[in-house]
Amino acid sequence: MTNAFSPKRILLGKPLESDRADGQLLPKRIALPVFASDALSSVAYGPQEMFLILTIGGLAVLAHAPWVALGVLCLIAIVVAGSFQLVRAYPSGGGDYEVAHRNLGPRAGLVVGSALLIDYVLTVAVSVASGVDNVISAFPALGPFRVELAVALIALLAAANLRGVRESGTAFAIPTYVFIGSVVLLIGTGLVRTALGDPPVAESSGYAVEGDPLTQAGLALLLLRAFASGCSALTGIEAISNGVPAFRQPKVRNARITLLLMGGISMTLFAGITALGVIAKVHYAEDPCDLVGYADCASVPQQSVIAQLGTAVFGGGSPLFFLLTIATALVLMLAANTAFNGFPLLGSVLAANGYAPKSLQTRGDRLVHSNGVILLALGAALLVLAFQADLNALIQLYIIGVFVSFSFGQIGMVVHWRRLLRSKRRSEFQPVPFAINLVSAVCTSSVLVVVTVTKFAHGAWLVFLIGPVLWWLMFRIHRYYGRVRDEIAADRTTQFGAKGDHAIVLVGELSKPTLKALDYAIAARHESLEAVHADIDPEATKRLQKAWRQSGIRVPLRIAPSPYRDISVPVIEHIERHRAEHGPEVVTVYTPKYVGLRWWERILHNHKSARIRHKLMLVHGVTLALVPWQLHPDRPIAPSARPLPGEARRGEPRRPVVRRRHERHATRR
Amino acid sequence: MTNAFSPKRILLGKPLESDRADGQLLPKRIALPVFASDALSSVAYGPQEMFLILTIGGLAVLAHAPWVALGVLCLIAIVVAGSFQLVRAYPSGGGDYEVAHRNLGPRAGLVVGSALLIDYVLTVAVSVASGVDNVISAFPALGPFRVELAVALIALLAAANLRGVRESGTAFAIPTYVFIGSVVLLIGTGLVRTALGDPPVAESSGYAVEGDPLTQAGLALLLLRAFASGCSALTGIEAISNGVPAFRQPKVRNARITLLLMGGISMTLFAGITALGVIAKVHYAEDPCDLVGYADCASVPQQSVIAQLGTAVFGGGSPLFFLLTIATALVLMLAANTAFNGFPLLGSVLAANGYAPKSLQTRGDRLVHSNGVILLALGAALLVLAFQADLNALIQLYIIGVFVSFSFGQIGMVVHWRRLLRSKRRSEFQPVPFAINLVSAVCTSSVLVVVTVTKFAHGAWLVFLIGPVLWWLMFRIHRYYGRVRDEIAADRTTQFGAKGDHAIVLVGELSKPTLKALDYAIAARHESLEAVHADIDPEATKRLQKAWRQSGIRVPLRIAPSPYRDISVPVIEHIERHRAEHGPEVVTVYTPKYVGLRWWERILHNHKSARIRHKLMLVHGVTLALVPWQLHPDRPIAPSARPLPGEARRGEPRRPVVRRRHERHATRR
Repeated sequence: MTNAFSPKRILLGKPLESDRADGQLLPKRIALPVFASDALSSVAYGPQEMFLILTIGGLAVLAHAPWVALGVLCLIAIVVAGSFQLVRAYPSGGGDYEVAHRNLGPRAGLVVGSALLIDYVLTVAVSVASGVDNVISAFPALGPFRVELAVALIALLAAANLRGVRESGTAFAIPTYVFIGSVVLLIGTGLVRTALGDPPVAESSGYAVEGDPLTQAGLALLLLRAFASGCSALTGIEAISNGVPAFRQPKVRNARITLLLMGGISMTLFAGITALGVIAKVHYAEDPCDLVGYADCASVPQQSVIAQLGTAVFGGGSPLFFLLTIATALVLMLAANTAFNGFPLLGSVLAANGYAPKSLQTRGDRLVHSNGVILLALGAALLVLAFQADLNALIQLYIIGVFVSFSFGQIGMVVHWRRLLRSKRRSEFQPVPFAINLVSAVCTSSVLVVVTVTKFAHGAWLVFLIGPVLWWLMFRIHRYYGRVRDEIAADRTTQFGAKGDHAIVLVGELSKPTLKALDYAIAARHESLEAVHADIDPEATKRLQKAWRQSGIRVPLRIAPSPYRDISVPVIEHIERHRAEHGPEVVTVYTPKYVGLRWWERILHNHKSARIRHKLMLVHGVTLALVPWQLHPDRPIAPSARPLPGEARRGEPRRPVVRRRHERHATRR
Repeated sequence: MTNAFSPKRILLGKPLESDRADGQLLPKRIALPVFASDALSSVAYGPQEMFLILTIGGLAVLAHAPWVALGVLCLIAIVVAGSFQLVRAYPSGGGDYEVAHRNLGPRAGLVVGSALLIDYVLTVAVSVASGVDNVISAFPALGPFRVELAVALIALLAAANLRGVRESGTAFAIPTYVFIGSVVLLIGTGLVRTALGDPPVAESSGYAVEGDPLTQAGLALLLLRAFASGCSALTGIEAISNGVPAFRQPKVRNARITLLLMGGISMTLFAGITALGVIAKVHYAEDPCDLVGYADCASVPQQSVIAQLGTAVFGGGSPLFFLLTIATALVLMLAANTAFNGFPLLGSVLAANGYAPKSLQTRGDRLVHSNGVILLALGAALLVLAFQADLNALIQLYIIGVFVSFSFGQIGMVVHWRRLLRSKRRSEFQPVPFAINLVSAVCTSSVLVVVTVTKFAHGAWLVFLIGPVLWWLMFRIHRYYGRVRDEIAADRTTQFGAKGDHAIVLVGELSKPTLKALDYAIAARHESLEAVHADIDPEATKRLQKAWRQSGIRVPLRIAPSPYRDISVPVIEHIERHRAEHGPEVVTVYTPKYVGLRWWERILHNHKSARIRHKLMLVHGVTLALVPWQLHPDRPIAPSARPLPGEARRGEPRRPVVRRRHERHATRR
């Protein structure tokens, strides 16, 4: 039915049937890289951002790194435990959004919805920025192309995802395992070397750091900020609870096992990297010029913490160093890919609930919510461009959304258990899961406050600006769709009774498309039929009238005066005059329309007639009949069906039966 | 007819009748500012650019300024004389384009056409950049907003011109006369002071200039470059020969007088400013940091030459200084406005000849070629953004186009006279005008070579890149329109004979818009009628079938299976099955369409149905009937006409006559 050789087909592959949707579901070994990559890849920047803040305070403060890291590790455990409960209670893929929506009301759900939407966009922006950082750490010559690289990668991800979820899962699975393997190897080698008395030493350990002297309160605040930045390692844990429907049966069990695996690996990697960073004395600053002794800080890019550790443990330029940095970059792409799975899914859930444009709900040929994919790519590209792919700036906006959704989700779970306790299903209440959710709710809410306080002035205010706007937009969209639904709902009393059947063929010049429109109008056997020409140029009008007479067409040609060089207004006035004479009939206006045009042909055609049609559509009791005319009939166009038996190609003359019909019509009126 | 309170009306004013087009014609006192402002304002940057190049060579080379200026003055006289002849021979407003087209062939005409189009865009960009320069010279605090100011001014000009030519003429007339007056006052005061032994001294005379030592050839090249830059004072002379139709009767005589007036004033101002510049020892450099002694060259913007002279003669900060700089800035806006008159006119001439999209030919409600205005504004804004409103960079691209068009126009005039001499109208040949055009052709062609050689490496290559691309585009558009014209031309043998009259109403859900479409389809009394629903969701389909039965509609509802969640393909297959049974009938497909939507409502509606319609239009023998449904019927929309007598508001139920008709139909098939 569709053309197998169109560019869309080649890029996206064959369309998939609805029935195959189940075959697109993910086994655990594929689901882990697809959904856990976001959380796992967070260790590529989580510890780094923590070191960055601590470095501000100087060497004395850096010594607190293990304690801050311990705080982050506990939080990961708590959030994973909380999500573990949530996945079973709400396995439909709505995740925190659904929990908040059902237990705290639609408005709270919408808060989570907008927070998650923002967060998915930031996941893409941050992951891609961090990925590019690691690529540049491996190949410093690419330094000047940071932004271009980031935007190109986002475009690549969007294209891959428009192809569909399965292919992206398979194509992206290996890097995650390579990443986990290479980081474990890094940690293992580093720790073994330390145990053997040959601890790795980072190149940056030689740079002095000048910390400002701190008060007790200042130190506490700095530690809180470091903790908040380290919490960026928690981003991505929500991905699994939002993606349960994509798991194979038994969905909940598989999702929960994947969640635990992910939490365990994530904590191991975070702990290991932090430990190695402390051992190797990694110094990482927002601006390398703050590091005393850093040569040429304006032009030489700073290596990421992972790359610094790779250099210290494996040796700079060694094959294992490149394996580590490239695997890190690739897994960060996978993390961005997580958002390309989550954002369109959430968008379609929001659209189904009437909070987002319906077009987000439509699945494309490849069972993907294409519009969501495109929207996400545009948003992330915009952020990357606005912040020039600067990871440290982007990370300030991140986390807020994640913790808004964690908190609302966990508070929602607490309410869920309390409701269960008060309802008839009291027996289903489980005290241990309830306690887990309660602790999780308290912790995540507290961290949300910490994160907000410490990050607001550093850029997070932008999220507090965009979030409410998004919330308001979705709220209004919901109200709007509701009003339209009420407005168009048919009820028992809805009855129309259109009267009369007059038809008008708009004639500009005597061309084949116009004649075809006339022919179709005749075939439809309207009660009355006339051709109308708007008199813009008296010369052209005379030529047309002459040609009309000579052609022998007996449908009357009426001339509508047009002092404003406009076509629609004279035609509308003509319709009014007709109705003044014949009563309020339904009027069908026939116009030819070029179809099968290439994009540049659309610039050269159809504009004027589109404007006319647009205005005629606003007239009471008018229906527009578009008679297609295919320019270049030899060009193949997609759904043209097979030419029907006995039917000539469109645009080609057939039997000369027109005249007879014209006669019949002309005599009637 | 149209709504008087729409934003478009408030911004653009009432629509004007074609008959009033003559009333829009310009008397000389208005035509001078409208068409001559471009040429006159060129003296704001012409002498400055000349000084800029000479300054490169140091003080010794600066002494050659009067001779270079003399060369420019002679060239102005020659070009004005040549245009004087051209205006009479070709008064239709095609200007150089028409002369080249008729005498040197369509391809040469197209060269001039593309050169002029580029030049109009550059006129806007250069004039606005120079205007902003003068504003910043008066108010240095605006320095950081150079680009923003320039883009805002272009937007303002576009809005003013979308209102129509008369208003823009009146609104812009005064500044030109104020500009001429204030520059004459500047020159007069300066010269009188010099004669009285108190010559004005520019502030910049104190800065030393370090010229590189030059060879004889180097000196010659530098003088040629200075001459080429000074020639930017010639830009705009072509405006009158391109705008003859906008003059009042007698058009040719009025245009010629305006041309002479313009030439005289232009030469006076150019000579005066150059003389004052030499007397006051003005130093102007591309980068103020090249001027030894210039304090804080990185942050303090350099004053324009006009502003420097104003400071030297009137005193910095004096009322006359502000009058001069502001009048200069305003007249430069007027010059940009010239392009807003010329570009759309040339675009419509090109469109009428089939070289540009037809949409450039359409006049809007206000008798303005709106699309041309918008296109010009976009092009100029793009240039200003790309070159950061840097006058010295933009000026390098300028002039080329002007001299291409001068040369082709004058060579065309020479050919014109030679043809006249060889034809029967030999008596009309005039030797003096012929000699003038001959000299003018030789001079302008030589200058074109000089300008190309001296400016190519400094940025003019861009014009030599865009020009041919534009030429090729217009050439292909012409060929394309020709082919389409041949393809759709009706001849004596063109006969169609559409057969059969089947109608389908697409039904998604049982809503009022769908019922209205059904009602109209019934009113059109097709031979056969059925409702078709694509079965995307079996649950929804069952609900629809139940509602259909309960509503008592007797038009049969057919369900088309849709395994791909697509609507168009199942409907197309349904049509194929129908035709396999009943033969190749014309099929009219009815769909409701929301009309009168606000822009944001368009995002929320209609997308899906537009995609379906697009695909159905490609099927053989299918006509689409759009039945409009106005959401929010209380909202006023433009051409809604008055509600017809006896007709209910669209969207409101009327009499219950549907059922009777349904019965008639259902029993027929």
